[in-house]
Amino acid sequence: MTKSGNGNPKENAGYKAAEYVRDGMIVGLGTGSTVAFTMDRLAERIKGGLRITGVPTSIQTAMKARERGIPLASLDDVSQIDLTIDGADQIDPSLMLIKGRGAAQVRERCVADASKRLIIVADSSKLCDQLSGPVPVEVIPFALGHVTRKLEQMGGVVVVRDGVKKDGPVLSDNGNIILDYHSGPIKDPQALESEINNIPGVVGCGIMAEFSDIMTVIVGENDDCRILGIKEE
Amino acid sequence: MTKSGNGNPKENAGYKAAEYVRDGMIVGLGTGSTVAFTMDRLAERIKGGLRITGVPTSIQTAMKARERGIPLASLDDVSQIDLTIDGADQIDPSLMLIKGRGAAQVRERCVADASKRLIIVADSSKLCDQLSGPVPVEVIPFALGHVTRKLEQMGGVVVVRDGVKKDGPVLSDNGNIILDYHSGPIKDPQALESEINNIPGVVGCGIMAEFSDIMTVIVGENDDCRILGIKEE
Repeated sequence: MTKSGNGNPKENAGYKAAEYVRDGMIVGLGTGSTVAFTMDRLAERIKGGLRITGVPTSIQTAMKARERGIPLASLDDVSQIDLTIDGADQIDPSLMLIKGRGAAQVRERCVADASKRLIIVADSSKLCDQLSGPVPVEVIPFALGHVTRKLEQMGGVVVVRDGVKKDGPVLSDNGNIILDYHSGPIKDPQALESEINNIPGVVGCGIMAEFSDIMTVIVGENDDCRILGIKEE
Repeated sequence: MTKSGNGNPKENAGYKAAEYVRDGMIVGLGTGSTVAFTMDRLAERIKGGLRITGVPTSIQTAMKARERGIPLASLDDVSQIDLTIDGADQIDPSLMLIKGRGAAQVRERCVADASKRLIIVADSSKLCDQLSGPVPVEVIPFALGHVTRKLEQMGGVVVVRDGVKKDGPVLSDNGNIILDYHSGPIKDPQALESEINNIPGVVGCGIMAEFSDIMTVIVGENDDCRILGIKEE
């Protein structure tokens, strides 16, 4: 049973995703406000007897999961993840994504890459006709200037993501800097993803173009959800 | 003037490379024992009036350069590097390289990528008919198990590089773990480089297959040097 019709699209999507979780599963837990609703619902189901192991994609998600009593393991403790539930910042019609507004895209991509199935939860504001950036790019501090110049040579504008409540740049959970690459409209997301990831000093960017074959997108509406991609639960 | 005929191939190669450095150049400084001989010679030339700025590829190289009185700047302080002098662990006939025995391959690749010209110094034991690994692979600690499994699925054997005088794994200057991927003979270095670098969680591997158009290799012999690649000084 899921709550619905409460007028909160994120909550509707987050709760709906929890229905895909079965007893005994290893579940990748993405980062962000919509996944937090999924964890709320999973916590209720755990109180009702559901046994799962969560694999968090960020320090924040690990903290939220522990508050809710969701058992956790690290990515190193599992050989495969049954299902990962995560958010996205932009979703195009072929289910290519931009992620990383929360600076967690590298760990999120690792967890997605270890997963048999990926569920993306979002509200309809995340749907777009064409991905357009900004593309979050995690870089080792040593290469900040070099990667910035390389990205600028590719034609976009680079902004070092600044901290709030922290002087200077945001650091990812991996201890690296986040650049936001304002690319403009992206004609070939897969090519741009590869081009950025191959710049020396880049740890990983937020374009995820190669996961559509294992992906379901749950789009929360005011009263219900719309399902894109793989339909069966 | 360079010393030669001293019976030390590494010293011969290292000294020869120093001849390529001109007054006013920004010089990338690689990591390892052969480049240390280059820095010895550069230090002598600096005492004689040569003005250069070095960009070190590792904490070790920065320390050695400071001992020798070589002025330094970080990669962020320069917009381009005139010439980088670095070592390699394996060099094939088309001047593709394997680097990273010193765990510095990611910073070395960033500096090479920012350079107009790359000089590789080596003794003849580094020349090979075909690259064969092990390929050093720098990974974020979060993804240790995941990247290990992915590499094993590619058919090779993975060894976590252990520290000496440090319990547990070696950490790179970027704070990451080094895996040595025993691939066996590598038929297509460029394809393997791209395949490894695209595994989520990998920061960078030690195959450098795309630098031959700016590269000179100086192979130290007992009494002289052999020059491969771009010949003019």
